[in-house]
Amino acid sequence: MKNLLSMEHLTKEEILHIIARAAAFEKGEAAQLNRTYNVANLFFEPSTRTKTSFEMAERRVGCEVIPFDAGFSSALKGETMYDTVKTLEMIGIDAVIIRAKEDEYYNELLEGIECAVINAGDGAGQHPSQCLLDLYTIYKEFGHFEGLNITIVGDITHSRVAKSNANALTRLGANVRFLCPAEWAGDFEAAHSWEDVLEDSDVIMLLRIQHERHAVSKNFSKDGYHEEFGLTAAREKRMKQGAIIMHPAPINRDVEIADELVECERSRIFSQVRNGVFARMAILETILKERA
Amino acid sequence: MKNLLSMEHLTKEEILHIIARAAAFEKGEAAQLNRTYNVANLFFEPSTRTKTSFEMAERRVGCEVIPFDAGFSSALKGETMYDTVKTLEMIGIDAVIIRAKEDEYYNELLEGIECAVINAGDGAGQHPSQCLLDLYTIYKEFGHFEGLNITIVGDITHSRVAKSNANALTRLGANVRFLCPAEWAGDFEAAHSWEDVLEDSDVIMLLRIQHERHAVSKNFSKDGYHEEFGLTAAREKRMKQGAIIMHPAPINRDVEIADELVECERSRIFSQVRNGVFARMAILETILKERA
Amino acid sequence: MKNLLSMEHLTKEEILHIIARAAAFEKGEAAQLNRTYNVANLFFEPSTRTKTSFEMAERRVGCEVIPFDAGFSSALKGETMYDTVKTLEMIGIDAVIIRAKEDEYYNELLEGIECAVINAGDGAGQHPSQCLLDLYTIYKEFGHFEGLNITIVGDITHSRVAKSNANALTRLGANVRFLCPAEWAGDFEAAHSWEDVLEDSDVIMLLRIQHERHAVSKNFSKDGYHEEFGLTAAREKRMKQGAIIMHPAPINRDVEIADELVECERSRIFSQVRNGVFARMAILETILKERA
Repeated sequence: MKNLLSMEHLTKEEILHIIARAAAFEKGEAAQLNRTYNVANLFFEPSTRTKTSFEMAERRVGCEVIPFDAGFSSALKGETMYDTVKTLEMIGIDAVIIRAKEDEYYNELLEGIECAVINAGDGAGQHPSQCLLDLYTIYKEFGHFEGLNITIVGDITHSRVAKSNANALTRLGANVRFLCPAEWAGDFEAAHSWEDVLEDSDVIMLLRIQHERHAVSKNFSKDGYHEEFGLTAAREKRMKQGAIIMHPAPINRDVEIADELVECERSRIFSQVRNGVFARMAILETILKERA
Repeated sequence: MKNLLSMEHLTKEEILHIIARAAAFEKGEAAQLNRTYNVANLFFEPSTRTKTSFEMAERRVGCEVIPFDAGFSSALKGETMYDTVKTLEMIGIDAVIIRAKEDEYYNELLEGIECAVINAGDGAGQHPSQCLLDLYTIYKEFGHFEGLNITIVGDITHSRVAKSNANALTRLGANVRFLCPAEWAGDFEAAHSWEDVLEDSDVIMLLRIQHERHAVSKNFSKDGYHEEFGLTAAREKRMKQGAIIMHPAPINRDVEIADELVECERSRIFSQVRNGVFARMAILETILKERA
Repeated sequence: MKNLLSMEHLTKEEILHIIARAAAFEKGEAAQLNRTYNVANLFFEPSTRTKTSFEMAERRVGCEVIPFDAGFSSALKGETMYDTVKTLEMIGIDAVIIRAKEDEYYNELLEGIECAVINAGDGAGQHPSQCLLDLYTIYKEFGHFEGLNITIVGDITHSRVAKSNANALTRLGANVRFLCPAEWAGDFEAAHSWEDVLEDSDVIMLLRIQHERHAVSKNFSKDGYHEEFGLTAAREKRMKQGAIIMHPAPINRDVEIADELVECERSRIFSQVRNGVFARMAILETILKERA
């Protein structure tokens, strides 16, 4: 693996390898890297958990992290992404972790760049490290993917998480379904009522209502969304035994999920964050090991 | 000590312990910590000295500092302080150092959060690490607190420093007095003329006129404030032998204090900054030692 | 060398020493420093390559880097540069690396400041670390400076790079010429046509059109500038054998230089970035070695 750009590029074997290494790191194993690698985190959009998670994972696998302030860089002077990354490569950076608002910004990095590129979210495109931590979370819970009913709820067409996860989970044998207001389904086939998916789901994966990308639907207030598509306390009671709740966060409490459910027994929302460090250590090790 | 939120929570013994450890660190002693702790600095308001002082202290006690860019975090997406801190905890952070503009923002962190919380300033509330470095500075100078006349000058009602210091110094036996324009006294009993406090003060502690919080009084221009309530060269000459001048900084030169006095013999303004690193090392050690 | 403020302050011997140490670092030699020095990077203007290059160089010579967020510091509260730097000195910082928009901002740091000051760009003034990496790049290529024809092309009067380089290269024996639109020459004697300089130049050093400082000339569109003063593919073919192309970057592709030439055989544009880390290691070592 030279880069991690999109889940579509990963084979099933590569996915399972990363899950296995994440599990090993969680058990306390050290990264198998022969030297100190230099990395830089280029976050052109706000982020708390993805950025700090990478910062922690980078240190835990022994990287040197060179600070890069995306909001105060030469990108402001109109420098291209290629020139920015090539510059970092010449400075001695081995891998860049990038979040940017342009879909597939990484296409201009496919030729001429030697340093590894890890996509930490591209516009409404992919978010592969989030996907891999979600897969690791599901795997830890059930030990397999085959036959699991996994329901993704929310604004599917604008969600990086939905696309990355649907692709990978389907390939791993899970049965992925969507639930959302009709107007948000786009080209996806989706249920429009909890009744169709609530009681047989093994995993309910809630997506964030992205206020900063587009308003809650014209047809829904926040309260209205919660009532019709949110996970309420009454709905949680009807969930299957052993079923879990996931959310990539940040959460809009009482919109996607009732405030009181955020840390309930079924919730893996904060566990996902914890698992994210191990998944990202696995990603970094896998990619950096291939370098001299 | 699990957290450091407000001086009111510290016993006299805890205060004296931190002063003693600060003194030990200044003499070159190493921190008594058994492992590397992970910390993050969440500064939601601009800061130079408090933030860089913590950054330095954290490294000197052997912490790993995970960068957190408050101005570019998911707080922008409306994430609650609880969810932000819980996320950092799950990522593996042992202690967060927080500055925020809401008074007592930390109240929502009292339940459910395991990681330690160190308050680096809450709105117009408290600023306990500044207070502890001020106490250390006074202790180094006089060797005791009992009976010292300490005059705090400036916008008392809006000052975190004034509140934290008045509480602690009074408990330690000092005689704390205030000097300010009548309209800024609030509920405090205060002198309104230097004549009442100038010649018998052991410590004159100037507060910053906070342009960014509220303008200099309607009744005072900057020059007018300096003339009536600033420490001028003429006033400095009338100070008691051995008396010292303190200021938490940043300074407005020629407003709170005459430019020529900033580094005069009585001034401990830059020494306070130096002492701050030792005081914060003591705070970090005291809090982190209690963790596994 | 206590500070590095302007190329004019460096003797020829000091320049050659830094070039020699840069070469040694490039060959893998370690820095000759006896302790860990603390440094802080104060960038009050956006920067990618200078800032990350210093961050890397600092780590490679074994420094501890204390983060400083210039865009979120007490400078926003009106703190003077002197007070900011003095504060960092009291916190334990040994050297500050500063970029600021004021010409010769460092004049207020010449007295009373003990920590070393390295100028990483002052307004339209100097940019000595860029100059030293340029000199190192030229020296690596030709092994000497005497008699080289070096042509600097672009907005000379507003360029820190032009001023720093012209001064130093002339002292080192090179023959420095300028090429620019008549209205940009200021007090410099400059050619206004490529015909006068293209074929006998050993080094063509392109300057960035600084959109953020002033617009492309009223008399030139971007395309017009490229046609008349840009390095086009046709012009590159007429360059002398062994001649090289340099540019401090960030590049405006197809303005100063044709897109296809950026990584051509003659181009040292990305090599300059690589050399910058070694030059800055040499600067840091030279300055820090003189401290206790």
